[in-house]
Amino acid sequence: MSFQNPVFIPGPTNMPEALRRAVDMPTLDHRSSLFAEMLHPARAGVKKVLKSETAEVFFFPSTGTGGWETALTNTLSPGDTILAARNGMFSHRWIDMCQRHGLNVQVVETEWGLGLPADRFEEILSSDTSHQIKVVLATHNETATGVKSDIAAVRKALDAAGHPAMLYVDGVSSIASMDFRMDEWGVDIAVTGSQKGFMLPAGLAIVGFSPKAMQMVEAATLPRTFFDIRDMGRSYAANGYPYTPAVGLLNGLNKSCDMLLAEGLENVFARHHRIASGVRAAVHAWGMELCAASPDLYSDSVSAIRTPDGFDATQFVTHAADTYGVAFGVGLGDVAGKVFRIGHLGMLTDVMALSGIATAEMCMADLGLDIRLGSGVAAAQEVYRGSTAKPLKEAA
Amino acid sequence: MSFQNPVFIPGPTNMPEALRRAVDMPTLDHRSSLFAEMLHPARAGVKKVLKSETAEVFFFPSTGTGGWETALTNTLSPGDTILAARNGMFSHRWIDMCQRHGLNVQVVETEWGLGLPADRFEEILSSDTSHQIKVVLATHNETATGVKSDIAAVRKALDAAGHPAMLYVDGVSSIASMDFRMDEWGVDIAVTGSQKGFMLPAGLAIVGFSPKAMQMVEAATLPRTFFDIRDMGRSYAANGYPYTPAVGLLNGLNKSCDMLLAEGLENVFARHHRIASGVRAAVHAWGMELCAASPDLYSDSVSAIRTPDGFDATQFVTHAADTYGVAFGVGLGDVAGKVFRIGHLGMLTDVMALSGIATAEMCMADLGLDIRLGSGVAAAQEVYRGSTAKPLKEAA
Amino acid sequence: MSFQNPVFIPGPTNMPEALRRAVDMPTLDHRSSLFAEMLHPARAGVKKVLKSETAEVFFFPSTGTGGWETALTNTLSPGDTILAARNGMFSHRWIDMCQRHGLNVQVVETEWGLGLPADRFEEILSSDTSHQIKVVLATHNETATGVKSDIAAVRKALDAAGHPAMLYVDGVSSIASMDFRMDEWGVDIAVTGSQKGFMLPAGLAIVGFSPKAMQMVEAATLPRTFFDIRDMGRSYAANGYPYTPAVGLLNGLNKSCDMLLAEGLENVFARHHRIASGVRAAVHAWGMELCAASPDLYSDSVSAIRTPDGFDATQFVTHAADTYGVAFGVGLGDVAGKVFRIGHLGMLTDVMALSGIATAEMCMADLGLDIRLGSGVAAAQEVYRGSTAKPLKEAA
Amino acid sequence: MSFQNPVFIPGPTNMPEALRRAVDMPTLDHRSSLFAEMLHPARAGVKKVLKSETAEVFFFPSTGTGGWETALTNTLSPGDTILAARNGMFSHRWIDMCQRHGLNVQVVETEWGLGLPADRFEEILSSDTSHQIKVVLATHNETATGVKSDIAAVRKALDAAGHPAMLYVDGVSSIASMDFRMDEWGVDIAVTGSQKGFMLPAGLAIVGFSPKAMQMVEAATLPRTFFDIRDMGRSYAANGYPYTPAVGLLNGLNKSCDMLLAEGLENVFARHHRIASGVRAAVHAWGMELCAASPDLYSDSVSAIRTPDGFDATQFVTHAADTYGVAFGVGLGDVAGKVFRIGHLGMLTDVMALSGIATAEMCMADLGLDIRLGSGVAAAQEVYRGSTAKPLKEAA
Repeated sequence: MSFQNPVFIPGPTNMPEALRRAVDMPTLDHRSSLFAEMLHPARAGVKKVLKSETAEVFFFPSTGTGGWETALTNTLSPGDTILAARNGMFSHRWIDMCQRHGLNVQVVETEWGLGLPADRFEEILSSDTSHQIKVVLATHNETATGVKSDIAAVRKALDAAGHPAMLYVDGVSSIASMDFRMDEWGVDIAVTGSQKGFMLPAGLAIVGFSPKAMQMVEAATLPRTFFDIRDMGRSYAANGYPYTPAVGLLNGLNKSCDMLLAEGLENVFARHHRIASGVRAAVHAWGMELCAASPDLYSDSVSAIRTPDGFDATQFVTHAADTYGVAFGVGLGDVAGKVFRIGHLGMLTDVMALSGIATAEMCMADLGLDIRLGSGVAAAQEVYRGSTAKPLKEAA
Repeated sequence: MSFQNPVFIPGPTNMPEALRRAVDMPTLDHRSSLFAEMLHPARAGVKKVLKSETAEVFFFPSTGTGGWETALTNTLSPGDTILAARNGMFSHRWIDMCQRHGLNVQVVETEWGLGLPADRFEEILSSDTSHQIKVVLATHNETATGVKSDIAAVRKALDAAGHPAMLYVDGVSSIASMDFRMDEWGVDIAVTGSQKGFMLPAGLAIVGFSPKAMQMVEAATLPRTFFDIRDMGRSYAANGYPYTPAVGLLNGLNKSCDMLLAEGLENVFARHHRIASGVRAAVHAWGMELCAASPDLYSDSVSAIRTPDGFDATQFVTHAADTYGVAFGVGLGDVAGKVFRIGHLGMLTDVMALSGIATAEMCMADLGLDIRLGSGVAAAQEVYRGSTAKPLKEAA
Repeated sequence: MSFQNPVFIPGPTNMPEALRRAVDMPTLDHRSSLFAEMLHPARAGVKKVLKSETAEVFFFPSTGTGGWETALTNTLSPGDTILAARNGMFSHRWIDMCQRHGLNVQVVETEWGLGLPADRFEEILSSDTSHQIKVVLATHNETATGVKSDIAAVRKALDAAGHPAMLYVDGVSSIASMDFRMDEWGVDIAVTGSQKGFMLPAGLAIVGFSPKAMQMVEAATLPRTFFDIRDMGRSYAANGYPYTPAVGLLNGLNKSCDMLLAEGLENVFARHHRIASGVRAAVHAWGMELCAASPDLYSDSVSAIRTPDGFDATQFVTHAADTYGVAFGVGLGDVAGKVFRIGHLGMLTDVMALSGIATAEMCMADLGLDIRLGSGVAAAQEVYRGSTAKPLKEAA
Repeated sequence: MSFQNPVFIPGPTNMPEALRRAVDMPTLDHRSSLFAEMLHPARAGVKKVLKSETAEVFFFPSTGTGGWETALTNTLSPGDTILAARNGMFSHRWIDMCQRHGLNVQVVETEWGLGLPADRFEEILSSDTSHQIKVVLATHNETATGVKSDIAAVRKALDAAGHPAMLYVDGVSSIASMDFRMDEWGVDIAVTGSQKGFMLPAGLAIVGFSPKAMQMVEAATLPRTFFDIRDMGRSYAANGYPYTPAVGLLNGLNKSCDMLLAEGLENVFARHHRIASGVRAAVHAWGMELCAASPDLYSDSVSAIRTPDGFDATQFVTHAADTYGVAFGVGLGDVAGKVFRIGHLGMLTDVMALSGIATAEMCMADLGLDIRLGSGVAAAQEVYRGSTAKPLKEAA
């Protein structure tokens, strides 16, 4: 593995120099006033990235998984009913967490590669006339399959059913890379982490709570202390933190928001879309298919690529690491061995993406697939030419 | 605040260059074999630091508070009885966490400044003939008061009472700075974090489970997913992690153990004792008293210094930050405003300690206390002269 | 310009993480014993890289240009005669320096794109029966044209002519990237810098003097103080430096030698040859020609690519920077506007090289050249597949 | 030696985090437009620091010694006459350089510890009616003795003598730490380096040429190429550099100027004066004397402290390094073994200074001097209390 090559795992992502430096700061007294000077702007920045006017934003020294647990334990009580679809490894894990926390999950089994079944949700919600369902869980972007679901459609399903259930969205691999509209979509809790669109090391769970979600907190009886947003919120109000914060990551998050907002969120999304389109063009040039079943489901942050029957996609990943020093993502769960994944989120340039595509071609050829070298690269180059925005200018 | 001055908060501590560099690493694929090459040595290193042959060691992207929650939720069930003394802010918080998780805590209220009441524990345990008490909680080093308790004495109390309760120790501000003997003291769960004796940024909860504690895990019904050591252990066995790890911190922890073991644990402890002795000599030269009631309770990682009646110890901390750019610790909870704290743990040299003592003198004089300038420095210098071990050699 | 993309200028090169860290060290007292612990190993390491048993190695806080001046001023006197060929920008500049220092240079004008004319040298040396010529200057690798000359042939010319002139070699863009044999080739002074094969920032002139060159030093009357190797040598003998050294760069140079020797010099050269062969295969796939006139002249550290008549090669470089955030080299001097250059030296991987080739294709297509996208990439991929050595393992 | 302790050598100095980061930048194409964006502001910033409206500023990848050679070789011819006083190691070395370059130096031998003899200069200049003397060399701050000379007085001597000689000033250890007025004092060439007041690593010679000095350049016949300001100036005009620049150092220099000017030059000087006054108060409290003969000569960037007869001042420095991991400066030349030096320039805080003073006390006591521990610290504390300006706020 060479630290010189970009990584193509779907997170943690390649990090900009400026953010590495922001994270790697000397020890700062988190009870000093300087701490508030990075905490509050970071919260304000994340609100903008979530496109929310009203969310309360909290940061935990944790990961997206901790963010899920924050969402559940702060608003629910044992035995509460949850509606969720299982269409990939991460929706599966969130469902598993619910069950381990004594929640009653109504699972809609969904083929991996498909998006969230908003129609089916609407049926179920409509028939839940006693409003037993307290929360609908939705994974915006299934990192395991490269499937982007339509959160607006889930919101529409809730509204069409006239159902008051809350909508919790896992945006771990979408937020800050793909369009996310917390207020417009009526998202009640949004969960993400530091190591994807925010281009930082792993170590922060980032959650946004709507006013409606905030109203659930006192009544919720699931035990929590570390993840209790009440302690967190009270401490923020006093410019502090309920325990020792990950100061460097918060400093980095503040700077990451600055960087994203300086580029412009729509430009960030367009960049990810362009790079992803190039990767997909390469896949099609190779005569291969994505795991995502249709173009409307294609994720702009990760592509899961189905390999031919009999081909071991996990071996592809091992070969790339061992022979070329490049990290791609393996298939997980139901699609283990059947797909490999190219992450194209975070601080990625068209140029870096081309090196990943070229490496994938060599690996597939090395392992006996009938791939014309350069074919995927050429298809991606066509996408990248001309449409390339000015490369982001980084401060030295 | 100047990043040039050392910090004198009781954690996060000053960081060695080599550890900052180890943490600030480029993105590494945590599913690659390189990850195991840092994970397993870090676990082995921590075992040595804990002086344990048998502990299972786990790392969570979290803090010491998350370590407490890991200890409780993996081994206990709602309604279980806990014995604990409240003798400072951190023992208070752990008790509070137990109560919020539905545990029944028998609290021995203890004056802040005193250590854990082993005798009282023995009485209570002896009278608990039905063995309702499942766990004794013990805070090894109360960071709020600078009080070190005698964990061997607590173990003796358990043994004298013939009581099978488990012993969970918060060693957040002691482990890797002061002697800690997990096996010899019969500690069942040891909890610490990355930002104290390990000299790293905050962001890792570090826990060691004894074989006896491991046997409690399956039966425990407190809900947990993020902090479930079963997922963690299974993932370790497969050279992985159940979610995205904080790779840089784990790399740093591995290197921190190397650094501590290269210096020699007993040398590390002796260095902390020498530096702390100098600070205490200064305090006595000033005619002041520590919060810790007697010399056997003096902590080698933090000194809480009682200020005269009518003096606002919090103002001292603000003045030091605003006027001299130096961070000391405020008093917390019962001793807020009555003490200020000098942290002397982590990568600290005698020379750095002297600058903290000198700054404290200036601040006290500025704020009207009758302090002879240089008096505390001179007392500390006497301690540091001659007894100084070779300064630790750091790799460039 | 994005700091995320590799650079493809022929130096300063991409830097390994480990070397950036080695250079970026805290202030170290250069009069302490630690300084000698990096200075002497760095000198020994460079000797190995030069493949010399007998050279005296000196480091100046300067650049390769300062290395040239060190060579001249320490061994020559005004009016001394020099033999040199002008076949590119860097040989031109060294000649210019000689003239500005009052030396009498016999210049063999040579077409840019050709190598050093060893035959012509032999003729001239043979006819110089009075041995007026004191030194033959030879640029091993013309960075401006991507032409590697045959230093062994120059040595042969000297020997065939039975001429005692010394042989000074500019190895700035060859040493540590391409085979260099100081002793075997009878090189009397070898000159290089930190920012090419040693993969460090610019700032060090690195010179090796043969015993024969050392014997010239006292008699030489060209004035020098900063570049005087006598002060330098005396200071080294006392574990010091005649003025303030660039400590971080010397620390980095020491670690760079360790890294090069751990990879193995022959492996380093093979890696450069493989990467360069891929770049050349791409150029030929594009139907274009190198500036270097024949394959034996092809440089493994930089390729200068001739663009069609009427095409502004400088615009290519500007376009690559502005549109794709990638730095290539412009043509210099006689070939300005007629070539662009791809640097492929230092810490480069096959994967990084492919991104440069792919970017060059996009740029040429954007600017109207008839280039089939992916064609050069495919040609390079063929070269890189299978032949790829294990990627260099870097310490975290 | 611990990297945790500050250094107290008179340069290279302790470095602010922000400047280390600025220097440690990824490779940037020095032929791209970004280079000019750091070069020109750095030149403008240095002009402000020099307090000059008219100087041409040049940067060489070199050191202050190279700056001296730049001054001489660009403006003088062999046999030219120079007037200089030898009152310390650095004036000695500059004189030696002149002699080695064939200049005729009229040396005024001056006791080490005294300043430049302006009166004697006036006599000599007045008697030089044929204006043979082309240049007066003046070392503003003798780093070896901690003696600051009065450059305005030297200017007055020139003016009183009605002599047209140029005035070249070595401001290596004064500029950016102590007041320096290039225009007001009629300085023709000012020389400094990156590693003192600019708080950067060594590696840049920084020179300012007055319009009068610029007029000398064409006629000067001393050979130079590397240090030729004509090539340098022409390249600047084309936004380039005549060879490979030390890009990171130039980026750091640009940011250093920003930092100095943001603090305010007069505040920077006042901070140095305050810290130096504290060190001097400590010296006097110890009953010791400075090498500098009188208070008007006291340097605000370095104090050379005379030790009692029979005491080996060099052993003091070794002991401090070996026992306490702290670097002080040894005595050089005439005062070797007789003085030790405390550097107090660059990014130093009062708090850091106190740790140096406290360490010096321990060392002297350890080595048998009759020093009351804490006495010097107390004296310095008195100076630092109250007068302390707000600590410089550094960006994270």
